[in-house]
Amino acid sequence: MKQFMDKDFLLENETSRVLYHDYAAPMPIIDYHCHLDAKEIYEDKKFVDITEAWLSGDHYKWRLMRANGIDERYITGNASSWEKFLAYSKMLPRAIGNPVYHWTYMELQRYFDCYEVLNENTAEKIFELCNNKLKDDDTLSACGIMTKSNVEVVVTTDDPIDDLKWHMKITKDADCNTRVYPCFRPDAILNINNEHYTTYMKKLGEAAGVKIKSFEDLKTALVNRIEYFNVNGCRTSDHGFNDIPFSTLSEKKIEKIFDKAINKEKLNESDINAYQSAVLLFCATHYKRLNWVMQLHYGVLRNVNDTMHKQVGVNTGFDTIGSNTGITALAELLNSMNVNDSLPKTIIFPINPINNHAVSILTGAFPEVGIKSKLQQGSAWWFNDTFYGMEQQIKCFAESNLLANFIGMLTDSRSFLSYTRHEYFRRILCNIVGSWINDGKYHNDIKEVGKMIQDISYFNAKEFFNYNEIK
Amino acid sequence: MKQFMDKDFLLENETSRVLYHDYAAPMPIIDYHCHLDAKEIYEDKKFVDITEAWLSGDHYKWRLMRANGIDERYITGNASSWEKFLAYSKMLPRAIGNPVYHWTYMELQRYFDCYEVLNENTAEKIFELCNNKLKDDDTLSACGIMTKSNVEVVVTTDDPIDDLKWHMKITKDADCNTRVYPCFRPDAILNINNEHYTTYMKKLGEAAGVKIKSFEDLKTALVNRIEYFNVNGCRTSDHGFNDIPFSTLSEKKIEKIFDKAINKEKLNESDINAYQSAVLLFCATHYKRLNWVMQLHYGVLRNVNDTMHKQVGVNTGFDTIGSNTGITALAELLNSMNVNDSLPKTIIFPINPINNHAVSILTGAFPEVGIKSKLQQGSAWWFNDTFYGMEQQIKCFAESNLLANFIGMLTDSRSFLSYTRHEYFRRILCNIVGSWINDGKYHNDIKEVGKMIQDISYFNAKEFFNYNEIK
Amino acid sequence: MKQFMDKDFLLENETSRVLYHDYAAPMPIIDYHCHLDAKEIYEDKKFVDITEAWLSGDHYKWRLMRANGIDERYITGNASSWEKFLAYSKMLPRAIGNPVYHWTYMELQRYFDCYEVLNENTAEKIFELCNNKLKDDDTLSACGIMTKSNVEVVVTTDDPIDDLKWHMKITKDADCNTRVYPCFRPDAILNINNEHYTTYMKKLGEAAGVKIKSFEDLKTALVNRIEYFNVNGCRTSDHGFNDIPFSTLSEKKIEKIFDKAINKEKLNESDINAYQSAVLLFCATHYKRLNWVMQLHYGVLRNVNDTMHKQVGVNTGFDTIGSNTGITALAELLNSMNVNDSLPKTIIFPINPINNHAVSILTGAFPEVGIKSKLQQGSAWWFNDTFYGMEQQIKCFAESNLLANFIGMLTDSRSFLSYTRHEYFRRILCNIVGSWINDGKYHNDIKEVGKMIQDISYFNAKEFFNYNEIK
Repeated sequence: MKQFMDKDFLLENETSRVLYHDYAAPMPIIDYHCHLDAKEIYEDKKFVDITEAWLSGDHYKWRLMRANGIDERYITGNASSWEKFLAYSKMLPRAIGNPVYHWTYMELQRYFDCYEVLNENTAEKIFELCNNKLKDDDTLSACGIMTKSNVEVVVTTDDPIDDLKWHMKITKDADCNTRVYPCFRPDAILNINNEHYTTYMKKLGEAAGVKIKSFEDLKTALVNRIEYFNVNGCRTSDHGFNDIPFSTLSEKKIEKIFDKAINKEKLNESDINAYQSAVLLFCATHYKRLNWVMQLHYGVLRNVNDTMHKQVGVNTGFDTIGSNTGITALAELLNSMNVNDSLPKTIIFPINPINNHAVSILTGAFPEVGIKSKLQQGSAWWFNDTFYGMEQQIKCFAESNLLANFIGMLTDSRSFLSYTRHEYFRRILCNIVGSWINDGKYHNDIKEVGKMIQDISYFNAKEFFNYNEIK
Repeated sequence: MKQFMDKDFLLENETSRVLYHDYAAPMPIIDYHCHLDAKEIYEDKKFVDITEAWLSGDHYKWRLMRANGIDERYITGNASSWEKFLAYSKMLPRAIGNPVYHWTYMELQRYFDCYEVLNENTAEKIFELCNNKLKDDDTLSACGIMTKSNVEVVVTTDDPIDDLKWHMKITKDADCNTRVYPCFRPDAILNINNEHYTTYMKKLGEAAGVKIKSFEDLKTALVNRIEYFNVNGCRTSDHGFNDIPFSTLSEKKIEKIFDKAINKEKLNESDINAYQSAVLLFCATHYKRLNWVMQLHYGVLRNVNDTMHKQVGVNTGFDTIGSNTGITALAELLNSMNVNDSLPKTIIFPINPINNHAVSILTGAFPEVGIKSKLQQGSAWWFNDTFYGMEQQIKCFAESNLLANFIGMLTDSRSFLSYTRHEYFRRILCNIVGSWINDGKYHNDIKEVGKMIQDISYFNAKEFFNYNEIK
Repeated sequence: MKQFMDKDFLLENETSRVLYHDYAAPMPIIDYHCHLDAKEIYEDKKFVDITEAWLSGDHYKWRLMRANGIDERYITGNASSWEKFLAYSKMLPRAIGNPVYHWTYMELQRYFDCYEVLNENTAEKIFELCNNKLKDDDTLSACGIMTKSNVEVVVTTDDPIDDLKWHMKITKDADCNTRVYPCFRPDAILNINNEHYTTYMKKLGEAAGVKIKSFEDLKTALVNRIEYFNVNGCRTSDHGFNDIPFSTLSEKKIEKIFDKAINKEKLNESDINAYQSAVLLFCATHYKRLNWVMQLHYGVLRNVNDTMHKQVGVNTGFDTIGSNTGITALAELLNSMNVNDSLPKTIIFPINPINNHAVSILTGAFPEVGIKSKLQQGSAWWFNDTFYGMEQQIKCFAESNLLANFIGMLTDSRSFLSYTRHEYFRRILCNIVGSWINDGKYHNDIKEVGKMIQDISYFNAKEFFNYNEIK
């Protein structure tokens, strides 16, 4: 029997162990998509206690607490730190087979040097141990944690109107070993049917120095903000959709739709679809020109529980997996960009894992000379960021594309303690690949395979996003 | 090489074996959803021979016989018991990798103490052995089999107009160790487009002592029957859908739709959808009030082979997996109930396994304080009730919810010999969980994990359905 | 650690090894669906070099080269054979976990007796070795390769207007050990919305000796061509769809739709659907009458990259997996045929693996007395023809049907070197089945299981297609 989560956790044979310890583990992290706060990085945030560092903002953990029937008071409410930690600790042993169970122990082990079992009985002792460590150990700050985790690059998620002042400050004078770049996420521009759209257009106009009275003006503003982001180290955009839009209408008709929106007239589904397609196609042209990477996240049904949405707001654990396949629209959208020579490097993240194979095969239909797997399926995302989910995504990528070109893992997290998710991914990756060698499915050349593991862990992302070019 | 289906069947390591033999196996069974006949239980039915006990009514076995090209005469027709048994025995060795193959041997071993290989050559000997046993052994009656299988509670599936007299008789004076409760299944009330709807409404009115002339009357009748079922030990309802309905119309419009139906006017899809939603939302209020569990089975395409439907009727093996995902409607339906504080505990069974992950994640969006996994994905159902199907469902549940809260297995069967399916499930469960401990993925505390295994095997269902409260 | 791809490749236990080496490996191949050229078989084509034999026409390999950023010049362009081979060799090590990686080595080992690792450094040596072998070894011709691969029957894919002269020549006087039969593929007849439809109707009329002025005439022509194919050894048809059509209109209405098409009027979706259903239902009657097998391939989105479609044409690696489930239409179509007693033996190949389970369960709803698994899910097709894809399909078949009745593998290939894909399939099959025995999940009777393995590898297909009846 293997020891519980020891150094060879998830590594089932000697080849896997060598691949992980000698090749994957030493690699720095390029966390190319997350939801960390640049201000907190600049200020090198210190945490008042383990509850703040660990349980505030982590809706993965919240969902499990709720599944255990715990009162919201102990989750997002006004219970004390200790009460919240205790509630979490009571739930934890029940999370057998859940990735949160593993993340919890990896975070305790790596950041707090704590190897004890966490449950109702040990909660108090571990609470104190962690809190003392947070107080006494200067390296357990935002930047310290990133340094300890060997994070070379972190990419935040930013609205086009963001002035990126915290990113600039970090670049200019922060004492942080991690480079922090923005990611351009124009969801508010795409959500033309949102009640705040016209207000947002005003703000966007101000940020871009353009009076946005037409779709043409919007395009001017978009280019302005894309350029602004580019100058500030941005090399990637991100888009989130429920349905993937695709439709082609003349500029004239798009102007009319825009006009209706600005005048707060009601838009129908096909208006929205046409507008979103037009914005995306326009943006893609500039992403491509600037050699950015376009990230597409799709299929989530958001805020399905109205009661809790009202009570605790968005991004709190009440989103779910939708059933959109998106494949036909995706194929048409990508083709439409490609025909105009404006298809940038693209990573596609479907939220429903049943779309993995179709998405991965689709990426292979849009190659470009000189770019390694120009389009790729992204690593197992959100609800799929689990042991079996990652195994399935890695095997799917390998069977339908060139695994050696995979740009690998990201955290997508709101917590500074989530960097162990890269370790989790790398262990799973090394175990799969090591098993293949062990089973005679790949020739036994550890150095060559080790290099691929390093590429997937680090070098591929760095090259794909051009992060070695900046500054 | 392991012995064929010996005591450690499916248990691949020592931890799994301990978990199964010491913790899971001794647990009684709460079979919270099946299609057994209360009358047969009351009368403690004896079987004339193995063919009646084994092959009559079991469409899982029939499908395989047909797949082997066997004439319907030997399946549902008038061939002799011996001819049918022989036909089945000839087919059996070809069912390699099929759950029916394992069920067959588990049933032979557990109920008939027969450990021989069944095939064309051994059929006669085993036919006689089983028939003698059925004749000589008094414990091989309906109740005897349930006692032998350690079935503490069995839940039948009953129409709202059922007077539940057999259930009452069982409670009053049956000499049966198993408690038998009804389940409220108002499919006939929901199927407003069924040709027998108006006739059914009359019968329902009679059962409820209400003249049903309006939707309002129907609601009165519904409450009446729900209360009647509740008094008779019912703690759960069950609904079967092809598509999950969802729509919100005013009471007034529902009345109009009901009026059309009563007058045999044609209803369109949106009428049906609106009516079904209204009935469901109304029922849910009362399920919630009475602390019942609502079961939703969805996605089956029924009776797809018209020729055989005419020849042998319904529930004979000619249903199939549909492609409805149901996720959006499910999310809206559950939210709609939740907003009105009328969402009961709910178990969702999608028939298409591609919906497992989306359904399981969805259940996590509707928690309630004090209830452990108030909404849950049900165990692998019908066509998924297989080795790999159950493995996939258990892993999916663990990764997306708290496995320790899972209420576990049910038979959904029409045969008294199917209780070994609980054993099959428990072995698979213990093997998965034991492997996790063995691989260092969970801390090695057999007692704690053993308790969870017992919860999933027995205690969770008992608590979830409140079966310890009755009488 | 196992040796790299040695004789026990993919065979993880002794039972699997015995099943493969003693039972599966010696079986001849019935390749019941491929895209080889009958003319090349008749002429016993010799290959100028390894690049022609290996890389021309194999879009599986092309996709991976493109994924590696290789210029089209080295793929379908005018680079030299050596340059193309070198480009492929550079890419290959990156295809870790991809079936093409395994196919490559199986082809090198089996046909060229080459056991070296292929990469940039060894490319030149292996290029020469293979080219010399192709020059010197007379058995490395089209027929020679098929003989070496023990191919007993190969089934090409042919248009209804094909005169089958190369098939006749082969039958009459070719010195080939492999029998070559046509497959009737009337996609051009079904594609009524294709711009070349009217032209095609003329050609079809000429081939059939019928002036096609009505749908009635088309039916006469169809019967004529079906009979012609039947006389020339055809025992199977093949249909490719994006969506599965189903609709029922009167003959009169179908005549009107046909009339519109002949007069080049625009057809709507429902016209096309109705016409295609009518053609299919008509064809099925004759397939059934002649005891043919109907193959249905569905769900592919073709030529999604317009730019590359223009540049390199069809079937070059720019197709992808669509998201159609097809289940409802399939169920209705099959039922409609069955009701008229005109449902032939049918193999269904969904391109999206998420449909595997639903399709396999559906096949069980249309049995026929005396035929073993009359309807079957086909082996893992195209993008699913991978290690995990085949494992999944085999397990799915076993759990939902009778694996012993499975007609097994086909190549679907355009290359004479692809016969090793049958070996790949058989190894995976034997490994799964051997593991079941090894784990005590099936009784340990190697002879009985060995016979099933032989059936799946060879005898089932031979019987299903009636290829032992011809001549």
